[in-house]
Amino acid sequence: MRRPTIVDIARAAGVSKGAVSCALNGRPGVSDSTRSRILEIAGRLGWAPSSAARALSDGRAGAIGLIVDRPALVLGTESFFMRLIAGVQDELRDGTTALMLQSVDDPELELTTHKRWYAERRVDGVLLVDLRREDPRIPALAEIGLPAVVIGGPMAAGGPPCVTSDDAGAMHEAVGHLAALGHRRIARVAGPEDFVHTGQRSAAFAEAARDLGLDRADVVHSDYSGDQGAAVTRRLLTAANPPTALVFDNDLMAVAGLGVAQELGMSVPGRLSIVAWDDSPLCEVVRPELTAVRRDITEHGRLAAALLLDHIATGAGSDLETPGAALVPRASTGPVPAG
Amino acid sequence: MRRPTIVDIARAAGVSKGAVSCALNGRPGVSDSTRSRILEIAGRLGWAPSSAARALSDGRAGAIGLIVDRPALVLGTESFFMRLIAGVQDELRDGTTALMLQSVDDPELELTTHKRWYAERRVDGVLLVDLRREDPRIPALAEIGLPAVVIGGPMAAGGPPCVTSDDAGAMHEAVGHLAALGHRRIARVAGPEDFVHTGQRSAAFAEAARDLGLDRADVVHSDYSGDQGAAVTRRLLTAANPPTALVFDNDLMAVAGLGVAQELGMSVPGRLSIVAWDDSPLCEVVRPELTAVRRDITEHGRLAAALLLDHIATGAGSDLETPGAALVPRASTGPVPAG
Repeated sequence: MRRPTIVDIARAAGVSKGAVSCALNGRPGVSDSTRSRILEIAGRLGWAPSSAARALSDGRAGAIGLIVDRPALVLGTESFFMRLIAGVQDELRDGTTALMLQSVDDPELELTTHKRWYAERRVDGVLLVDLRREDPRIPALAEIGLPAVVIGGPMAAGGPPCVTSDDAGAMHEAVGHLAALGHRRIARVAGPEDFVHTGQRSAAFAEAARDLGLDRADVVHSDYSGDQGAAVTRRLLTAANPPTALVFDNDLMAVAGLGVAQELGMSVPGRLSIVAWDDSPLCEVVRPELTAVRRDITEHGRLAAALLLDHIATGAGSDLETPGAALVPRASTGPVPAG
Repeated sequence: MRRPTIVDIARAAGVSKGAVSCALNGRPGVSDSTRSRILEIAGRLGWAPSSAARALSDGRAGAIGLIVDRPALVLGTESFFMRLIAGVQDELRDGTTALMLQSVDDPELELTTHKRWYAERRVDGVLLVDLRREDPRIPALAEIGLPAVVIGGPMAAGGPPCVTSDDAGAMHEAVGHLAALGHRRIARVAGPEDFVHTGQRSAAFAEAARDLGLDRADVVHSDYSGDQGAAVTRRLLTAANPPTALVFDNDLMAVAGLGVAQELGMSVPGRLSIVAWDDSPLCEVVRPELTAVRRDITEHGRLAAALLLDHIATGAGSDLETPGAALVPRASTGPVPAG
């Protein structure tokens, strides 16, 4: 059952490995008659069909790529990525296209890996997450011609197609919910400042605060980790004139914020209201259960993969919005404390 | 920058797509002179070098596979898999081997996918997780000759090489810690019964309970979800003569169990002690912080990938144990309640 190698072919043809390599790669260095004898033997030994042979004959790798640039520990505790990946794989379930996954620890390495994957024909296209302002991936991938779909956006005209969600609408709903409960000082514990989606949510947060005439609507940034979520919450709650409600940019930081409130003896929601984003099983197992913004992340991943396959096949593709971003009120939000 | 396809080669050579396919795949159907002209043109158009061409010439796919058979939502809230994957990718960081990842929803589909990957030369070997008793993957992969490394084990003689951890030692440490605090009735909220590692931990749990002369040491099984973790905890705590300490088989169920204790007005650790396994950032953000069994999961993944690459290259490979499984005592375990 062992797959034939260049050595097997060389042995059967009575030639060198180098000669086989020349023949298989269409390079000069062997006579025409040797070349065709080698190819016949290689064919007889059965090195086709395979995904490799198909990639040579139709130019397709039969795989799409996803590179995630976040610390492994943060990744492992945030449900977003595994749900996104589950959705991508649901779309790929017929098995003709595979997913190549890589986690890296800097944006430079992500770009290098994309380029290498494409040069080596390992992928036919890639999904891009955590888009940054002036993201260098966009012009770089356009230049090498690697098809890409952005999860997030929308992009400026001429950019790659995107799968978006109504983050602005969901943010207005979350802030509106808190304002209706009487909160006038709300803070947002956000993700890294240079992510495009962080900026979009912060803009919607500021706009909602203005519309509703809130007294204060501060935004502080973090790296999505529980540690930073806790540290930022502690700083906010122990400052003068602290916020009475916090909106967190992921579930882990929201749970960490809940822990800090408990440490400080502040009851939730009696003295502090908490909103998490995205909703996850974690939000439902802690007490009180956390009010959260729910998006259909699995569907988001499914749509992104479908759009990418279409984009690879046709060169076109229009932006899609995943429906259903909405606030799920639970026990962690309540009326503003008196006084 | 577009990659040449069979169509480009056919056009340049003035032949049909089928003729190009025959030539590239070493099949009869074209004359020797046409074959060599096609190969020369294909070479001139630059379809090599690529991973596909390399796979043809050296028989290697340049990728390893990992298939996970758990619900996407559970996966997304448990840090084990992302940390394992981060370790695998750390070992693959030189870029010559890629990781193919798939999540499936039944064991049958996992086996089919493994076979297809190997038939299509998409992978050179696979990592197996969540080994079951009489696991059908072991004989099936041996039969097709696909190199595999098991994460977990050890296996019976003649099985694939494994990367193990000292779960039995860590379980003795956890139960010993609780017994030293005076607990005599301890229950274990375990993962699915047919996983080998579940059985190994349960055996160690029973042995430790015998050694320490505990009054009761029940084991109940679950699917690792927060929902089942909560339901099982509620059942255990509201039964007659309930346990005073619980040992959970993942972090999410432990947090769910903490939530149930809070609902029932049972202080942790005043009336109930809780131990989680594996430790994760989640265990540190809840209040009280959870005592947990810590294993170096990232190192576990790194060793598994290294062992698999070695196994692929040499056909041999000996079991490795990831060092450092140990209990991390925190605030969720305390003296048994009086009375």
